[in-house]
Amino acid sequence: MNDHLTRLQAWVQAQQLDVAYISNYTNINYFTGFFSDPEERITGLFVFPDAEPLLFVPALSIEAVKKAGWPYAVAGYLDHEAPFTLIADAIKQRVAQPLKWGIEKDDLSVFKFEAIRQQFPQATFAADASRFIEGLQLIKTPAEIAAMEEAGRQADRAFAAGFAALKAGITEQEVVAEIEYAMMKEGVMHMSFDTIVQAGEDAADPHGGPEQVAIKPGELVLFDLGTNNHGYMSDATRTVAFGQGVSAKAQELHKVCLEAQLTAQAAVRPGMRAEELDKIARDIIDRAGYGEYFNHRLGHSIGMSTHEFPSIMAGNQMALQPGMCFSIEPGIYVPGVAGVRIEDCVHVTETGCEPFTHTPKAYTVID
Amino acid sequence: MNDHLTRLQAWVQAQQLDVAYISNYTNINYFTGFFSDPEERITGLFVFPDAEPLLFVPALSIEAVKKAGWPYAVAGYLDHEAPFTLIADAIKQRVAQPLKWGIEKDDLSVFKFEAIRQQFPQATFAADASRFIEGLQLIKTPAEIAAMEEAGRQADRAFAAGFAALKAGITEQEVVAEIEYAMMKEGVMHMSFDTIVQAGEDAADPHGGPEQVAIKPGELVLFDLGTNNHGYMSDATRTVAFGQGVSAKAQELHKVCLEAQLTAQAAVRPGMRAEELDKIARDIIDRAGYGEYFNHRLGHSIGMSTHEFPSIMAGNQMALQPGMCFSIEPGIYVPGVAGVRIEDCVHVTETGCEPFTHTPKAYTVID
Ligand SMILES: [Mn+2]
Ligand SMILES: [Mn+2]
Repeated sequence: MNDHLTRLQAWVQAQQLDVAYISNYTNINYFTGFFSDPEERITGLFVFPDAEPLLFVPALSIEAVKKAGWPYAVAGYLDHEAPFTLIADAIKQRVAQPLKWGIEKDDLSVFKFEAIRQQFPQATFAADASRFIEGLQLIKTPAEIAAMEEAGRQADRAFAAGFAALKAGITEQEVVAEIEYAMMKEGVMHMSFDTIVQAGEDAADPHGGPEQVAIKPGELVLFDLGTNNHGYMSDATRTVAFGQGVSAKAQELHKVCLEAQLTAQAAVRPGMRAEELDKIARDIIDRAGYGEYFNHRLGHSIGMSTHEFPSIMAGNQMALQPGMCFSIEPGIYVPGVAGVRIEDCVHVTETGCEPFTHTPKAYTVID
Repeated sequence: MNDHLTRLQAWVQAQQLDVAYISNYTNINYFTGFFSDPEERITGLFVFPDAEPLLFVPALSIEAVKKAGWPYAVAGYLDHEAPFTLIADAIKQRVAQPLKWGIEKDDLSVFKFEAIRQQFPQATFAADASRFIEGLQLIKTPAEIAAMEEAGRQADRAFAAGFAALKAGITEQEVVAEIEYAMMKEGVMHMSFDTIVQAGEDAADPHGGPEQVAIKPGELVLFDLGTNNHGYMSDATRTVAFGQGVSAKAQELHKVCLEAQLTAQAAVRPGMRAEELDKIARDIIDRAGYGEYFNHRLGHSIGMSTHEFPSIMAGNQMALQPGMCFSIEPGIYVPGVAGVRIEDCVHVTETGCEPFTHTPKAYTVID
């Protein structure tokens, strides 16, 4: 069994559960190495205290499960079959009367929950595997960090493609097209999220997307992008100047944001509380007079999802530990002026942290 | 209120509910015109029998909700706030004691369900909005069909870009890159799913994806693609010959599949049962001796999701009705030989059906 799966089974044993039902397809990938978004179909990993785990999938996926190297039992169902009846039968072959269940409360729908409960009306479902799994995923193994480093190198190449595409008259959307095209041409078929390119005042809306508007010389251009490297994500943001003529005010936003980002990244230490790190960046922006324009958390954890548990924000007193991976992404969004965000994702080491992306963060003018 | 929302409120009244909680973000778009994937954050639409609806979103999204033209109440929460406490307070301002709830059982997670139940311990949650909504979405309005026609025209242009990209030595992944690049260059920023390009024997795996392998002259090449036009999806498949030298066997698979597709599409009538349509296509493939290689349903419904309720398959006795939109996509996958699938999505009319895509389906050789 891989280490993740071994630890899940140990949790099942420690909680004295009869079975755990893992329903989230990203987490199924984490435990099995098999990735598939089943959409309206049903996929489930069932883990037992004393029996081998069972992966239940649509019948069309059975070959893909074997190709992915899953060495344990796999069962499938056809579109006209009733999946939860088949699941119940397969479980009863392993545990005659499974009474104590662990479920992923963050993922399992009420529909699936009721379908299982109908099969096992005596069962209880108190144990929340979501909380256990998010704790397990908090600390990345060296192999996971290596995969995220590769994703980071991909993101660095994506920035290079985006910067190279900047020219008079090109639109935000066209720059996105160039970035994703360059990635696909090298075989990176999935970004970790929709690439964001926002120029000038557009970037002051931290939740806006790329528009069909031409980028103008003298604007700051914000790039927020990442790739999916075999399930492991990168995520980074750079804000660069397009040509000469960026206003002194916009340049100042970049200067303050950069200082906040660099200072926070340099301050990371194991044992520091997450909220302390947020405060280090926030204090710099506050003192410069832009506190009200930094209207989001400093960062989010990252791994097989771009946003994992926990956030780096006020109120989170969790101590940072080696192996934790998260973003450090202060932003200053002043309507009518500009928006600046600078972001690296990092992994915590014994003495500090290392970023996954290495594209320079200093104020850069692209001519 | 838009028609969808009016009908949802009528359902709330007819079911004598105190409130319905819509949690699926695609369905929130369907009812409100506001689209956002909130990821780990919380978004909910709350609909009442006698009060105006409330849209609850992360605070960062409030401006986007207003921009989307939502004319009713919107409330937000910050990352450090407890969303379900705020939701409960907002609901109690409208209904002092909401006892009967409707929820989307297909979407609502056990976590969110327990969070709501904790706020309203007296409440019951029997009414399933998922079933009501899938019934409502079954019949598209003329405006929805127009949006899907536009998505279909985009898909036709995507096929043209893909066929134009075929040349000796190009890989499946590179063809995908050319297709998605061409779409983005014209402002179509989202495909409805990962574009599939599979050549030769690769196409015999109906759940495989594009590989980094060169397409060879004499191979059949399967293209399955679609676009997202402001939330409305297209989805179509063509299988074409790359150059001369396609084996007689592979050509026969195309001939049989095409006959099945054309015959089924021509047979659509209001009142026909979904399973009858599946059988029309399946019988043709069965009689040609390839029944075992057509190992999936004939089609799926489509709208704001690529896969909606219901499937066109054995066992579905639902009568087809004008306004229903679904795929007709027979496939024949013979390991070691080739895979062929031909697909149009159509909308049912008073007398038959009209396809959303018009790229020729006849056997085509791309030189
Ligand atoms: Mn980020
Ligand atoms: Mn389809």
